[in-house]
Amino acid sequence: MAKPRRISLDAMGGDQGPAVVVPGAAMALEKHPNLEFLLVGDQKRIEPHLAAHPDLAARSRIVHTETVIGMDDKPSQAVRRGRGTSMWLCLEAIRNGEAEAAVSAGNTGALMAMAKLVLRTMPGIERPAIAGQWPTVEHNSIVLDLGANIGAEARQLADYALMGAAMARALYGIERPRVGLLNIGVEEIKGIEDVREAHALLKGTELPIDYKGFVEGDQIGQGIVDVVVVEGYAGNIALKTAEGTAKQMAAYLREALTSSVAAKLGAVLASSGLRALRDRMDPRRLNGGPFLGLNGIVIKSHGGTDAYGFASAIGVGYDMAEAGLLTRLAADLAALHGTLGDGGENNQAAAKQA
Amino acid sequence: MAKPRRISLDAMGGDQGPAVVVPGAAMALEKHPNLEFLLVGDQKRIEPHLAAHPDLAARSRIVHTETVIGMDDKPSQAVRRGRGTSMWLCLEAIRNGEAEAAVSAGNTGALMAMAKLVLRTMPGIERPAIAGQWPTVEHNSIVLDLGANIGAEARQLADYALMGAAMARALYGIERPRVGLLNIGVEEIKGIEDVREAHALLKGTELPIDYKGFVEGDQIGQGIVDVVVVEGYAGNIALKTAEGTAKQMAAYLREALTSSVAAKLGAVLASSGLRALRDRMDPRRLNGGPFLGLNGIVIKSHGGTDAYGFASAIGVGYDMAEAGLLTRLAADLAALHGTLGDGGENNQAAAKQA
Repeated sequence: MAKPRRISLDAMGGDQGPAVVVPGAAMALEKHPNLEFLLVGDQKRIEPHLAAHPDLAARSRIVHTETVIGMDDKPSQAVRRGRGTSMWLCLEAIRNGEAEAAVSAGNTGALMAMAKLVLRTMPGIERPAIAGQWPTVEHNSIVLDLGANIGAEARQLADYALMGAAMARALYGIERPRVGLLNIGVEEIKGIEDVREAHALLKGTELPIDYKGFVEGDQIGQGIVDVVVVEGYAGNIALKTAEGTAKQMAAYLREALTSSVAAKLGAVLASSGLRALRDRMDPRRLNGGPFLGLNGIVIKSHGGTDAYGFASAIGVGYDMAEAGLLTRLAADLAALHGTLGDGGENNQAAAKQA
Repeated sequence: MAKPRRISLDAMGGDQGPAVVVPGAAMALEKHPNLEFLLVGDQKRIEPHLAAHPDLAARSRIVHTETVIGMDDKPSQAVRRGRGTSMWLCLEAIRNGEAEAAVSAGNTGALMAMAKLVLRTMPGIERPAIAGQWPTVEHNSIVLDLGANIGAEARQLADYALMGAAMARALYGIERPRVGLLNIGVEEIKGIEDVREAHALLKGTELPIDYKGFVEGDQIGQGIVDVVVVEGYAGNIALKTAEGTAKQMAAYLREALTSSVAAKLGAVLASSGLRALRDRMDPRRLNGGPFLGLNGIVIKSHGGTDAYGFASAIGVGYDMAEAGLLTRLAADLAALHGTLGDGGENNQAAAKQA
């Protein structure tokens, strides 16, 4: 049997807490039988759900706490008053070596603030990024930053490139992921200065990626690169806009297929194809956005997802732990920063330790 | 009969030049019989197409020139060597009072650079924005800036709000358009500083708009506002991402409806509903992006569109001229700048002249 991989779960996070987290863990365990779990939260609320999953119960330990971070708590409040909450203990389990990854469906801002405090950022990284998987016509791609930071300097964008590449390596098994830099092509001087500088940097530096240059917004979904790098303001807007457009088209399609008796019959005949379409666009399938740049694997699940979606988020953490993402990423970042001459020694030392 | 409205058309712009522009003008004339046209370009290439449309020929005058701006010419080259080209003369017709709007399917960067040179920007406006119509589940909305400028200060975003509102008034007949500011909601301090400042400015100032506060990317397509304001880098990425997602879903749908004999039969039964879906998503229907902030109405058509799409772009210019957009916008901008105390007098004088 493969080496056990233990993941800590914020059992109280998300809209439904243990009612989603526990069956989600059970689904993830079916897929990856070497998983083990720390279920962090209110024992009395976790146990009834766990009773329905004896296999999961046998590979889980409850870490009891009665305090939780609210969905509306501000990051600053979370940091001041968050000690001892399910989210905090879930992150602390990584720092203490009791878990290799943490998954929470709680408040994003609070999770990021606490993760920075508990786990600290990797050497040379000031602020972590949030990454996510994006469905494309080819396969899936990774897009980052999805909104952790507003604005990004050229070096930060280069860091994102390496972080995204590490994730593509872990999730898709691609050794030299194709990386593109999101830009716009309307004006003569294409893109912002930081983006152009990052382009020069990525083009001119020896990196363990296959740098493909600029991509535009309509190319994200084409799958021509494995990793799309963008600063967080535009990245978040791109993500939300794509989600909105997909929902809009789904609504139009529903209308089209219920517009007449013939259309309804047509929809029945086409149902298996339409089901495949729905599966491809199912956001639960790609749920789970890692915070990259921390000394630990932290995955943010959507707060409103169900057990299937939460299992996907656990799967992302599992794949990243299995692939040894952190060790490799620390070495890659150290090499980049060494080349750029900023904090490289510090990083290389860290990489050796890792 | 209504007062004639004369529009100058860059007959050589776009992938197919007069083969699209001339039949496009004929379609627009069918819809708006008080239109007249200046067809600017190579007489020998325009005339054969015009021969097929005697009604159009009767209401058109050819302005002959043999030089054109190439699709790959840089804006700086266009400005230096563009004098006398079809694009240039098309814009000059507005300045000389021979036309009330200009439409070109040529090179965007060149068109913007020449438009600034020939028409100049409105008082208090440094750089024009590019606006576009966005299909929503409710009706259509206007989004700007779609990439004319990278980054925007708070006052520029406020200018965009008024420009977009003027366009909504002209196209949709809404007297007090609902305006939203595109932002992201991930971090505690939501959005960039300029966006937050613009929010304070729009909230606190008496303006002829119904300011609705922040909207996120997934809300653009919901139609909860008539105008979405965003700086051009993120705006361009949002537009392209939405286009890409729509294409991606259309490809999935095609696959779904051809995946089996039953599915193909289903698609035939549902064909009228599916046709309605296709029409709603048809980019030609909303073709035509105005450059706002110039002393003249300039509409950019997609280079690859057909006659139907080009007619839509003409329709945008027509509606804006009919509504007296420039006079009203000049007055609104003057009032805003007067309130903010920058160049207000200058603007008010301009508004009186307009």
